Amino acid sequence: MSVQKMILDVDTGIDDAMAIAYAVADPEVELIGILSSFGNIEADRAAQNALKILHLVGANDVPVFIGHQNPLDHNYQRIDVNSQIHGENGIGEVELPTPTQPVATQDGVDFLLTAAQEYGDQLTVVATGPMTNLASAWEQDPATMKKIGNITIMGGALTVPGNVTPVAEANVEQDPVAANQLFTSDLNVTMVGLDVTLRTLLTKDETSQWRTTEAGSKMADIVDFYIDVYADLYPELGGCSLHDPLAVGVAIDSSFVTTIDMNMMVTTEHDAYYARTIGDKARLNDPNPNVKVAVAVDKDRYLQVFMNHFKQLFN
Amino acid sequence: MSVQKMILDVDTGIDDAMAIAYAVADPEVELIGILSSFGNIEADRAAQNALKILHLVGANDVPVFIGHQNPLDHNYQRIDVNSQIHGENGIGEVELPTPTQPVATQDGVDFLLTAAQEYGDQLTVVATGPMTNLASAWEQDPATMKKIGNITIMGGALTVPGNVTPVAEANVEQDPVAANQLFTSDLNVTMVGLDVTLRTLLTKDETSQWRTTEAGSKMADIVDFYIDVYADLYPELGGCSLHDPLAVGVAIDSSFVTTIDMNMMVTTEHDAYYARTIGDKARLNDPNPNVKVAVAVDKDRYLQVFMNHFKQLFN
Repeated sequence: MSVQKMILDVDTGIDDAMAIAYAVADPEVELIGILSSFGNIEADRAAQNALKILHLVGANDVPVFIGHQNPLDHNYQRIDVNSQIHGENGIGEVELPTPTQPVATQDGVDFLLTAAQEYGDQLTVVATGPMTNLASAWEQDPATMKKIGNITIMGGALTVPGNVTPVAEANVEQDPVAANQLFTSDLNVTMVGLDVTLRTLLTKDETSQWRTTEAGSKMADIVDFYIDVYADLYPELGGCSLHDPLAVGVAIDSSFVTTIDMNMMVTTEHDAYYARTIGDKARLNDPNPNVKVAVAVDKDRYLQVFMNHFKQLFN
Repeated sequence: MSVQKMILDVDTGIDDAMAIAYAVADPEVELIGILSSFGNIEADRAAQNALKILHLVGANDVPVFIGHQNPLDHNYQRIDVNSQIHGENGIGEVELPTPTQPVATQDGVDFLLTAAQEYGDQLTVVATGPMTNLASAWEQDPATMKKIGNITIMGGALTVPGNVTPVAEANVEQDPVAANQLFTSDLNVTMVGLDVTLRTLLTKDETSQWRTTEAGSKMADIVDFYIDVYADLYPELGGCSLHDPLAVGVAIDSSFVTTIDMNMMVTTEHDAYYARTIGDKARLNDPNPNVKVAVAVDKDRYLQVFMNHFKQLFN
């Protein structure tokens, strides 16, 4: 078993919280740092939430950095639906103990580039928020970003409708310019979008199994908030989507999903197709497409691994 | 080698003309009839064009039936872009001899249902125009339609933009209600859409090889019209798309494409997303999806077979 260095780029967020816990629990991962961005919540509060989750799962030694606080071409404004889905505090209105470590002072994008330089193809980066930090780092230093072994994002929707508009998924919609820069760059990216995350569901039958410890009960409270929201908003699904933790799982074990190779783009014009992730017609026949889009998922096996990880954290 | 009975449902159309020629040339196909629909041209002129193409390739014994002349929920009106792409006469303004056989008197949908009843799973139906005849036949007699062994359509765009609007492909846009009925029926359908047909291209390097006979020269003239249109409209592609003949090829040999299993739907509301082919969120987690969507194509091998077929017709 090889252990990979991993950086998570999160906007914590309930499913980001699960992504952090999954990465901490996975024996094949050494989580070397967390980068925060705006999205589900402001970047500074996302960083605080990341610290709280790390504390909850006993990983106080993982440093947390703040990345971009705004999209590349406009200012971030948290909208009501984010509070509705993730709670006003981003983690389901659950109160967690104050973390023992502070946010790191180094800029998040600097940290990312330093790590890329140091670890190169041994490094895996999983972004489960907007792609602003990744796009910005690539703009600053494409050669260094190119060294990264594995870039996996949770974002986009290729074969299914979006969750913000019929074409736009939330992480891409937060910063379509950044997402388009990433997709049309020379970086190899795995896209774990709604195509597969809407099929990978968790219910209270699962979260109830974590309530054997105090920390597990807190995590179950957080995720149950999300499950209740999904029951209201998407009753047809029958559970909450494991968006962000699925992206971490795929980064570690790509066999959880089936992918297709695509040259992708994001629509940045402010019309009905804003923030759509779609094949790039202008590069349709270019060889060596740079994006692997996940279009099918072995959800049963993934859920089994997910639950093994969480039970190991909370026992 | 097994020979399959095949019915083509066409709106002839230059690429429909190529689809007819491909089916006639293929040794694994017994073309038992052609059904016409509105689309690239009116259904009655599409039938006349089909007869002319059959005559051109020496297949005067294949009967041609007229199917629906209008979409299910509105009246057909040929638009200028159809004349631009296919010529005013639908076959690149090329004059072909008057066919020796007349259009059959039986209604096209009746013919389809009779053949489905007679041949069952030995029957392959390839629709390269709107899905109106298929949807209508299914509505009339779902049990008989369910017997058909293979239903393959050229239409839709799942992973790439449309060719009528950013989300709408032409065949689906002609009758989105019919396409949605087909996709949400219990019929198994293979969708050969722009995802693969925009990658499968023909140039004058190929058509010039058919000019060894008078018939071959006529076919080359027809297709060169289409290639010139593509050079104007889609210069980035570098050729004309083999939309309809690819669907026939895939119906005969599914290994030309990679497919993903989806429950699909078509947006029928008259908004910016009209006629979009997309995964059906309401049935995302239903087992046994009924549509196989082609998302990648072995274009080199297909083009080789295509050219072998056409050289055999015109030598």
